[in-house]
Amino acid sequence: MEFSVRKEDLVKGLARSQAVVEKRTAMPILSNVLLDAREDKIIMRASDLETSFEGSYPARVQTQGSTTVPARKLFEIVKELPAEEIYLKEKENSYLHISGARANFELVGIAADEFPAFPEVTDAFELTVEAKILQEAIEKTMFAISQEDTRFNLAGLYVEKFQMPDGPALRCVATDGHRLSLIDKQVDGMEEFGLSKGVIIPRKGVSEIRKLCEEGGDIVLGLSKESAYVSKNEVKLILRMQEGAFPDYEVVIPKNTQNKAFVNRQAFSDVLKRVALLATDRFQGVALEFKEGLLEVQSQNPELGKASESLEMDYDGATLKVGFNAKYFLDICNAMKSEEISLAFIDEQNPCLVSGEGDPGYLSVVMPMRL
Amino acid sequence: MEFSVRKEDLVKGLARSQAVVEKRTAMPILSNVLLDAREDKIIMRASDLETSFEGSYPARVQTQGSTTVPARKLFEIVKELPAEEIYLKEKENSYLHISGARANFELVGIAADEFPAFPEVTDAFELTVEAKILQEAIEKTMFAISQEDTRFNLAGLYVEKFQMPDGPALRCVATDGHRLSLIDKQVDGMEEFGLSKGVIIPRKGVSEIRKLCEEGGDIVLGLSKESAYVSKNEVKLILRMQEGAFPDYEVVIPKNTQNKAFVNRQAFSDVLKRVALLATDRFQGVALEFKEGLLEVQSQNPELGKASESLEMDYDGATLKVGFNAKYFLDICNAMKSEEISLAFIDEQNPCLVSGEGDPGYLSVVMPMRL
Repeated sequence: MEFSVRKEDLVKGLARSQAVVEKRTAMPILSNVLLDAREDKIIMRASDLETSFEGSYPARVQTQGSTTVPARKLFEIVKELPAEEIYLKEKENSYLHISGARANFELVGIAADEFPAFPEVTDAFELTVEAKILQEAIEKTMFAISQEDTRFNLAGLYVEKFQMPDGPALRCVATDGHRLSLIDKQVDGMEEFGLSKGVIIPRKGVSEIRKLCEEGGDIVLGLSKESAYVSKNEVKLILRMQEGAFPDYEVVIPKNTQNKAFVNRQAFSDVLKRVALLATDRFQGVALEFKEGLLEVQSQNPELGKASESLEMDYDGATLKVGFNAKYFLDICNAMKSEEISLAFIDEQNPCLVSGEGDPGYLSVVMPMRL
Repeated sequence: MEFSVRKEDLVKGLARSQAVVEKRTAMPILSNVLLDAREDKIIMRASDLETSFEGSYPARVQTQGSTTVPARKLFEIVKELPAEEIYLKEKENSYLHISGARANFELVGIAADEFPAFPEVTDAFELTVEAKILQEAIEKTMFAISQEDTRFNLAGLYVEKFQMPDGPALRCVATDGHRLSLIDKQVDGMEEFGLSKGVIIPRKGVSEIRKLCEEGGDIVLGLSKESAYVSKNEVKLILRMQEGAFPDYEVVIPKNTQNKAFVNRQAFSDVLKRVALLATDRFQGVALEFKEGLLEVQSQNPELGKASESLEMDYDGATLKVGFNAKYFLDICNAMKSEEISLAFIDEQNPCLVSGEGDPGYLSVVMPMRL
């Protein structure tokens, strides 16, 4: 294998590989990036067996072939090279020679045939989605994905075709059991989209899709029961779907919420941030007291003291005092765009439903907590 | 105690306190900041018993008095308060009430009489120094201060009056046993400066003085055998001097260095950074080979591979190959301003002397290492 490639392209592909490779792994090959020089391009691959990345970039190939080297080290080297074009050549014993300007490196590699086979996705239904729509759907839900890997069926973003009155939508739902976020997005081609049940895209894959969306343009999403592919220009991601059944989330969304408050999103967020400073570290519990026209937010902590602040709001329901994890509301406020948001609930024992006119198709649910 | 103070002033004083207070301490009072309201000002104090800070800011005092509260928590609260003026009042059981706009906090405190007495500095010799001169002296030496607290006599910056041919200078020296940095600065008033022996300012104190210098203007330095004070506008630092004798550093500085190379500082630094990418993590060992007109830099690491790069330089001495910790040279290059620096040495077994015409009064010494 021997080729020259633009530094800019190599940096781009290696940057994407960093997030995918395993940092500490019992299989050293999973810390490596595969370089595969073919005709007029270099194909780069990285994988943790669950999330796989493939990037394809133009290259001047002298000798076709492939090898693997530590992804992080190669990235560090390439970034520092003072040359626009980088020259790479496979040497004996899987060493990779890398040079640019007067700098020469030889990096210890592992033969390409030890690298896991790139997964294939079969029977996928394909959608072409505007990247910024997909990005919005992810950013408004991903914070609610469970961080506990033991709850594997909650450790991803649930995606399904959902029948709305005005046609089918792409629905994304995330929940960690304490809160839930849901968004419905109208997407071209949903009519023909034939996936009968929803799938769970694992957390890491969701985060990689979001990054890919940042560049704008269109993105191709192919979903099947077991796996998915996401492609955009020279980049392709293959994701293995999370196993397990996503819970029946609709039962969690409160109906007939007769108590409804309207509050300025930014002001609410600022007050929560301040009052939470004296909440106990782990649960960030604050009490919200809903009174006519006024929201009182309070916290206390036996070691530190207590805090309180009030905020005007549009409310004429029953006087209620409910405990919540402030962080859950902060995440929601941060993801929403509406100037004013609505906090709706049945009573103190039931979850709070958050929505806003500036965020159509979106809702979040926060479970109350005992303080 | 009851007073109102500008948020801006409170933030300034609390920001300085953060670096001084102990994060994890067996004495909770050392995590606290003392607030002392007197007549028309609020005095703030923080101390770790070795470094003490005092700031004095204008305040509208309703009731004089003093108390202490956790410095970090108070800082977090004050920063977030949406008001230009903050109101503080001592309540029962050492609680401190803090409010701004509609936000109210009560923070658990500790009575002021438990706070350590503010140290006094007696028999100090005082100098008024331009802050930017002192800042330069510190930034060119402090990286060489030992990070090992067991080598207590090296864990600070040695400061002494040094007799130069054209009059006395303020000399600053730091060494960790593997490298040494030294600077001589002409300062007004050195003639009368009567400290007979040098003193060792502890690392943390040096870092606080440096921060104080960033604001520019003049700074007052009072040095005595046991302690020092540093004052600038509303801020005063009291530092207990490090005990122990500073080693006889002059014997380390090589004399009669017949082999002398001149190299572009930025290019040398860039090459070192790249080649060090494949040096072993802990020692960052690279080999420098001096040949006529050319410097070859090499590294190798059994787990990763090897790197090499060459750099043109002005050299006509003996061909020599010496091992060094790349980080030591990088720190020096980073601190210096000269476009071209000189690397001078006797032979492979002796340390390298670094200096540059753009950095008058400055030199660094780096010990060789076996690779």
